[in-house]
Amino acid sequence: MCAAGRSSRRRAASRLRKTKMSDDKLLPLRQKIDAIDAQILDLLNQRARVAQEVGHVKAETNAPVFRPEREAQVLRRAADRNPGPLLGADIQTIFREVMSACRALEKRVVVAYLGPEGTFSEQAVYQQFGHAIEGLSCVSIDEVFRDAEAGTADFGVVPIENSSEGVINRTLDLLLQTTLTISGEVSIPVHHSLMTASGKMEGITRICAHSQALAQCNAWLNQNYPSIERQAVASNAEAARMAGEDQSVAAIAGEIAGQKYNLQTVNAHIQDDPHNRTRFAVIGRLRTAPSGRDQTSIVLSVPNKAGAVYNLLAPLARHGVSMTRFESRPARMGAWEYYFYVDLEGHEQDEKVAQALEELRQNAAFFKLLGSYPLGL
Amino acid sequence: MCAAGRSSRRRAASRLRKTKMSDDKLLPLRQKIDAIDAQILDLLNQRARVAQEVGHVKAETNAPVFRPEREAQVLRRAADRNPGPLLGADIQTIFREVMSACRALEKRVVVAYLGPEGTFSEQAVYQQFGHAIEGLSCVSIDEVFRDAEAGTADFGVVPIENSSEGVINRTLDLLLQTTLTISGEVSIPVHHSLMTASGKMEGITRICAHSQALAQCNAWLNQNYPSIERQAVASNAEAARMAGEDQSVAAIAGEIAGQKYNLQTVNAHIQDDPHNRTRFAVIGRLRTAPSGRDQTSIVLSVPNKAGAVYNLLAPLARHGVSMTRFESRPARMGAWEYYFYVDLEGHEQDEKVAQALEELRQNAAFFKLLGSYPLGL
Repeated sequence: MCAAGRSSRRRAASRLRKTKMSDDKLLPLRQKIDAIDAQILDLLNQRARVAQEVGHVKAETNAPVFRPEREAQVLRRAADRNPGPLLGADIQTIFREVMSACRALEKRVVVAYLGPEGTFSEQAVYQQFGHAIEGLSCVSIDEVFRDAEAGTADFGVVPIENSSEGVINRTLDLLLQTTLTISGEVSIPVHHSLMTASGKMEGITRICAHSQALAQCNAWLNQNYPSIERQAVASNAEAARMAGEDQSVAAIAGEIAGQKYNLQTVNAHIQDDPHNRTRFAVIGRLRTAPSGRDQTSIVLSVPNKAGAVYNLLAPLARHGVSMTRFESRPARMGAWEYYFYVDLEGHEQDEKVAQALEELRQNAAFFKLLGSYPLGL
Repeated sequence: MCAAGRSSRRRAASRLRKTKMSDDKLLPLRQKIDAIDAQILDLLNQRARVAQEVGHVKAETNAPVFRPEREAQVLRRAADRNPGPLLGADIQTIFREVMSACRALEKRVVVAYLGPEGTFSEQAVYQQFGHAIEGLSCVSIDEVFRDAEAGTADFGVVPIENSSEGVINRTLDLLLQTTLTISGEVSIPVHHSLMTASGKMEGITRICAHSQALAQCNAWLNQNYPSIERQAVASNAEAARMAGEDQSVAAIAGEIAGQKYNLQTVNAHIQDDPHNRTRFAVIGRLRTAPSGRDQTSIVLSVPNKAGAVYNLLAPLARHGVSMTRFESRPARMGAWEYYFYVDLEGHEQDEKVAQALEELRQNAAFFKLLGSYPLGL
C-alpha cells in the first residue's frame, strides 16, 4: 500500500500544480464574474422591492399573487430578447426562479399535487411555480381538487394525459364537476424502457404496454423486435406487473413501474420521439387573463345523432378558431353518451374565440369552460 | 344551467373588472420590473461570455469545467452579501441555475445517478448541478460508480445515508474500492408517514420501521401511540411490505414505499425534526480544492484490540480537528473487523488537517481518503 500511496500522492500533487497554474490565469476572470454577480444580486433585490410594491397594490384590490399570464409574458420576453450566448431555455429556468423568489415575498404559494413527493408531479410543480413555494403532496387526484377548492392550497397540479395510461379519466371526471378552472399546463419529458424479469429477451413472446406507449415506440419495435407479438393492456403499470409474473412477457413502461415489479431494463429510451412528454393541468380558483399566446379548454356534449358533433363544432371553423386537441369519452351518467374535451387556440376574451364559445354554448346540450391559460413554454 | 350560467358569468365579469382596476395601478410597476429584467438578462449574458473565456483557459490547461469549491464560494458570497429582501436560500437557487447555464456553454456536465428518473436522487442532482446538465439514470449504485469511473459520466450522485435504511451499505462498500473521490454532499428533506392498509389504526398492534426512522419519530409516537409496540425491521420498505400483508401492522415509511404496497396514510410528516434529510455523495474523478468551509471524509481500520480506536483518533484531538461524523461497520472480508467512516471539519490541504491525516495514515492498518469537499449549503 505504501508505494501505491506515494504514487497516488504524486499524481495528486501534479494535478494540484496544474490546477494552480490555471487558477493564476483564471483569477482576473473570476473577479470579473464576481463583480457581475454583485450587480445581478443588487438588481434581483431591486426587482424584489418593486415586486413588494406590486404586492401592496394587489392586497388593496384583493388581486391574486400568482398571475400565470404575467409570468408567461416575462418568460417569453426573456427568451425572445436573449442575445445569447446563454440558451433561451436556461434563461427561462433562471427567470422562473427569480419570479418564484420575488413572489414568495408576497406569499409563499401553496400547491397541492398528486404525490408521492419526489416524483414527476412534484417536478411539474417546480416547473410551473419555481422552487420558492410550499408543495402539498396528496394521495389522490380527488384530494388535490378538494384542497384547491377548499383553499387549503392556492393551486393544484394534476396529471391530465400521459403515455402510460392515455388520458387520466379521474382528472377529466373531476374537471367536469369542479368550480376550479385550468390556469396553466405543464409538460415533463418521459421515457419508455423495454423491461423483463430477467433483463433479457430470450423466451419473450409478447410485448405489453398501454396502446399509447406501443404507438410511441412503434418504429423502434419494428426495427428491433418485428416478429414479437404486441398486446395493448390497460396501463404500462399493468404491463410491468404482468412481466413480473410471466417470463414470456416484456413490458414497455417507465423505470418507476419497472422498479416496483423488480424488472430489469433491456433497452432504455425506446420511444420514437425523444421529446415525448406527460401533461399536467394547473387548477385553481383564479381565472387567467390573456397572455398573448393562450389556449382554451372546454368540455361539451350533444345528443347522439348523426352529424351532431360536426354541427356542434361548426362555429369554430366559422370564426377561424383552431382546434388543437379533441378527445371524446363515454359519459358515465346523464343524458349524453359522450363528453368532448376540446382545446382551442386563443383566449376566451379574444373576440373570435368569445363569439365561437358563445355559439358553442348555445348549441351544446352541455357546455363547460375549463379555462383559458398561457400556452406551455 | 341557464341562471347558474348567468350568475357565474356575472361573477367572472366582476372579477375581471377588479383585475382591470388593479392592472392600471400595476402597469408602471411592471414596466419597472421589465426594465430591471432587461438589465439582468444583459448581465447574465455578460457573465456567460466571461465564463466562456474561463472555459478557454481551462481547455488550455486541461482544467475541469466543474469546480465544486468555486461554485460553493459563489453561492456563499451571494447569500452573505445579500441585503434582502430576497431570502438567501432563494438567491442561492437562482445563482445555482445561473452557474449551471454558464457552465453548460463550456460543457453540459453528465451526471449519473441512482434512478429511476423523477425521484429524490434526480432532485439531488439538480440541487448540486442546476438544471442545465445531462442526467443519466442508472439501475444500481454499482452502475453509477462504473459510469463515473469509465468517464461515461463526469460525476455520480449516490445515496449515502437516509432515514429509511440508515447508511447505504453498498455505497460505503464501493467507496472503499473506487478510484473516485467525493467532491460534494447534497441533502434532500424527507418526510415520514404512518401508514396502514386500511388508513386507520383500529386493530393495529405493532408499528414497524427501520430503527433510525423509529428514533426520528420517537416523540410523536410517544404522544400519539404510546401503548402500541414498536418493532425495528431492516428498512422502511420492508415495514411497508409487512403492513401491506398484515392488518395488525402499521409502517413508518415514505410515501413512495407506501404507494408501492397500496398503503393509506394515517398521519403524514410525523418525524420529530421537520428538517429531516437524506444525504447523497457526489463522486467524481476530480480532487476538489479548498473552498474555505470544507469537510473531509476518510475511512480507516485498526486491528481489534482494546483502546485501538481511541488511540487511532488521538491525532485529531491533538491537532484540533473536529470530527463531525463517525460510523463503524463490520468488514466483510480482509484482516480487520471494522471499518470506520469518519468526517472531519476542514480540507486535506489545511495545515492542521494535513498533519492529522498524515498521522492517521501512519497509525492505521488501512487508510483511505475519500475526499475533501465544500460543506453542504
